[in-house]
Amino acid sequence: MTESAEFPSDRIVATYELHDTERSPEALAAAIALEQTVEVPQALADASDLPPGVVGEVERIDIGAGAARTVLSYDPAVVKAGGLPALINLVFGNVSMMPGVRLVDVVFPDHVLAGFDGPRHGVAGVRALTGVHGRPLLATALKPRGVPVSRFVEMAGAFARGGGDIVKDDQNLIDDFEAFKDRVKQCADAVDDANQRTGRRCLYLPYATGPLPALTRRFEYAARLGLAGVLASPFIAGLGIARSLARDHDLMLMAHPTFSGGHFVSRREGIDPGLLFGTLLRIAGADVAVFTNVGGRFRFTRDDCASIAARLRAPLGRLPPAWPCPAGGMTFEQLPGLCADYGPDAVLLIGGALIGHGEDLEASTRTYLDVIREASQERLESPAPPREFPFDAQAPRVLAHRPGFEWSRRPSSAYKDARDLARDLAFKGVRRVELVGKFGEGTHADLRYFEVEPGGYSSLERHLHTHIVIGARGRGVLVLGGRRESLSPMDIACIGPLEIHQLRNESNEPFGFFCIVEHDRDRPMPP
Amino acid sequence: MTESAEFPSDRIVATYELHDTERSPEALAAAIALEQTVEVPQALADASDLPPGVVGEVERIDIGAGAARTVLSYDPAVVKAGGLPALINLVFGNVSMMPGVRLVDVVFPDHVLAGFDGPRHGVAGVRALTGVHGRPLLATALKPRGVPVSRFVEMAGAFARGGGDIVKDDQNLIDDFEAFKDRVKQCADAVDDANQRTGRRCLYLPYATGPLPALTRRFEYAARLGLAGVLASPFIAGLGIARSLARDHDLMLMAHPTFSGGHFVSRREGIDPGLLFGTLLRIAGADVAVFTNVGGRFRFTRDDCASIAARLRAPLGRLPPAWPCPAGGMTFEQLPGLCADYGPDAVLLIGGALIGHGEDLEASTRTYLDVIREASQERLESPAPPREFPFDAQAPRVLAHRPGFEWSRRPSSAYKDARDLARDLAFKGVRRVELVGKFGEGTHADLRYFEVEPGGYSSLERHLHTHIVIGARGRGVLVLGGRRESLSPMDIACIGPLEIHQLRNESNEPFGFFCIVEHDRDRPMPP
Repeated sequence: MTESAEFPSDRIVATYELHDTERSPEALAAAIALEQTVEVPQALADASDLPPGVVGEVERIDIGAGAARTVLSYDPAVVKAGGLPALINLVFGNVSMMPGVRLVDVVFPDHVLAGFDGPRHGVAGVRALTGVHGRPLLATALKPRGVPVSRFVEMAGAFARGGGDIVKDDQNLIDDFEAFKDRVKQCADAVDDANQRTGRRCLYLPYATGPLPALTRRFEYAARLGLAGVLASPFIAGLGIARSLARDHDLMLMAHPTFSGGHFVSRREGIDPGLLFGTLLRIAGADVAVFTNVGGRFRFTRDDCASIAARLRAPLGRLPPAWPCPAGGMTFEQLPGLCADYGPDAVLLIGGALIGHGEDLEASTRTYLDVIREASQERLESPAPPREFPFDAQAPRVLAHRPGFEWSRRPSSAYKDARDLARDLAFKGVRRVELVGKFGEGTHADLRYFEVEPGGYSSLERHLHTHIVIGARGRGVLVLGGRRESLSPMDIACIGPLEIHQLRNESNEPFGFFCIVEHDRDRPMPP
Repeated sequence: MTESAEFPSDRIVATYELHDTERSPEALAAAIALEQTVEVPQALADASDLPPGVVGEVERIDIGAGAARTVLSYDPAVVKAGGLPALINLVFGNVSMMPGVRLVDVVFPDHVLAGFDGPRHGVAGVRALTGVHGRPLLATALKPRGVPVSRFVEMAGAFARGGGDIVKDDQNLIDDFEAFKDRVKQCADAVDDANQRTGRRCLYLPYATGPLPALTRRFEYAARLGLAGVLASPFIAGLGIARSLARDHDLMLMAHPTFSGGHFVSRREGIDPGLLFGTLLRIAGADVAVFTNVGGRFRFTRDDCASIAARLRAPLGRLPPAWPCPAGGMTFEQLPGLCADYGPDAVLLIGGALIGHGEDLEASTRTYLDVIREASQERLESPAPPREFPFDAQAPRVLAHRPGFEWSRRPSSAYKDARDLARDLAFKGVRRVELVGKFGEGTHADLRYFEVEPGGYSSLERHLHTHIVIGARGRGVLVLGGRRESLSPMDIACIGPLEIHQLRNESNEPFGFFCIVEHDRDRPMPP
């Protein structure tokens, strides 16, 4: 898997197996190089005066006994600008549709890997969350779908009392957001109660799925409840999406393989399972990569599984190692073999067999853990305390207003930073007070107070984000496109996306206003 | 493709081809039924006292000369709750990983289809946007990546002046968001200028990709610039994501097939191309479904292409028909054949061949259109006027404050609606004024004013969304968990996610405050 390492260290190097016998390996390699980068015929590429390196380079073609292989290198600029979606498009976007072409390896320059933060928690982080060292973690799933919620709540509690490490929603447990809030809260409480009794820290991971914005809200809700993470389906949700959401909410991400099959089930096309579940899911931020183990209901080979585990743990820039999670019909009898095959840094996900092991799930969980402990050297440490969401519930919450439009704990600051000044955004005599949004509050909007001196003005600018303005002090003028409107205290205005605007003080007294903007927003542009 | 129509009309009916010879069709069908729904062994499913219909039902098994086929039916409840991601998980989630199982048809009850709005514009909508009737539309792509932005701007303008219908970014054109804003604005202006000259309306569709929130912003930017739509990659971005974003911004969605290959390139597994690009992409909201045409650089058969086009146009609940867009190496010589094969309701996407046709892209575009017109009966109507974003730039923007904390054009309303009252959210003496957010402003936050009578209080509640509160009139008490803080005019407070809170008036004067919330937000829960 590391044959690509001898090629240009400043480019992304991808290796493909070529099973297509209709075209020569040379012709196919040249076609891939064009298809994945400029997507025009060679003659047009030649005529376009392209900077060197933009077209993919065929570095090598190997024609051996089995399938031919070719190694190509690519300019990493698009990946640096567009992240994981751009990476996928670059190494296997259109080529995924070519029969007989299989992606088997990708090697990245360190400066590209530095743009991915990968697993948020990784092996060490999840060890710290659970407090369990020296042995594989035992995980289960809440199922079957269709039983009453109270049954899932009992199961979650029993598994945690029995000493289980991770209990997750089944990926078939899907309900609307308001029902999700209710069910997840009950399951989380049951696990919390069990943890209080055992002194351990079993993690409960709800399943986050759905279209936007429901998907985002499920991640956010899990975070706000203080849960350690979520189960998500990157192959349905989008490989670039789950990571963004987990990072934004500091959640551990357990990646379910649903809908991944097309990418590997043919052995002539698609992506090598080790590369897909080991390298790409790790770059996509999976802390735990669930895959179907050899000997279960699916058909990965022993080599596939070993390759996945190896790639989740191998050096990959500064990305921490992640957990392999063999699953898909594992049984009690397979436990010793699983421990031997994967070693201590694995999550063993056993659903149906554990739930059906006996009447008493708490006792069954203990029985399973006994077998795991026999095969390992368990060391328990105090688990990390429950996550505190950054919002400090004990801090004084009210920012008291003081004479002269000052606020407690919020000093005035410069109106614009140097980066904006460099963009021709001139202004005069503006004071700024950041009130809400920059202090870990977790709000989606920021609140600022601006005060303009007599004769002063804010910069004339436009941007994608919107403003809501509330007059607070004195009288000012809102310039919107070619129009002017007067703004007095308690008057309200809003400024739409890309509208050119400015606030001016043409009076002899200070003009102050509140301005509400989106927390994540684009930078202003000159008109 | 309609064989499933004879099965239960209130369930989702899926047909699979079975190419796996290691298991009998009966065993495989039974395994799929369990895998896709409850994911536990049959014995455990039997013992779980499940409501009828939760487990998938094997409706039929056909063993003929070729591959065996099985028809299964599923309970649609999860899809109604979880949308397209739940649908994908239900019909082909884990089963995608089973060798030798191919999904070839899915039939939906009308009440399930009613939950998907599908293409926003469809065939009729894009006809109205362009004003072109009776002939296929001609589309091209801005490429090759690597040439200066000014070259793309020239190309976009020349294609539009030559009478082309849709010019889109190449899916390899990926840059960071601030560079994207600049490039897209220039290309959009060039097409606008050309449209002014021709009196027609060529559409420019930029490519929206990236992790969140960059992806969302690209859709939003396109909408705010007044563009008709975007090109997106649902197979990378997530099939459920592109639709949500296009709907939120009222954009036409052109779906690029990059990274889709794994889902169909093996003929033993994956999803039938007609079902994938015709039915599923249409449910996923594609107005235009790009696929690789027979005879180009890829290998769809004539039947595959005909099936895609047929499914994009066939009755499917109330979903409008969408456009097939054959692409992938189409040439000038193929134009008459394309017109004959697809008829007038097709978008013919020709990139490299058109760009490389001659020095003068405007003249080449005319030449291509002449051939298309020869094969069709073109009727030009006045195209729809450019999209106006709902924000009305001419309306007075300032809501003037009036004595007694009333505002122009914004009447007071009830504090809570009946749905909240039914949830035990008691309150007393509260007046509400919706100021910003409910009037098509396009802001991400809503601004409301609340006024509490002496002795009154808001409901004691919590929710995932946050509040920012600004004191405006009189003096009140903010109850946060077990704490109380005083709130006077111009004091600021914020209330975090899931914090239990209430605002009370314990004085003898009215207590009024502004409250800022996210525009899209969850409903309050009792403490």
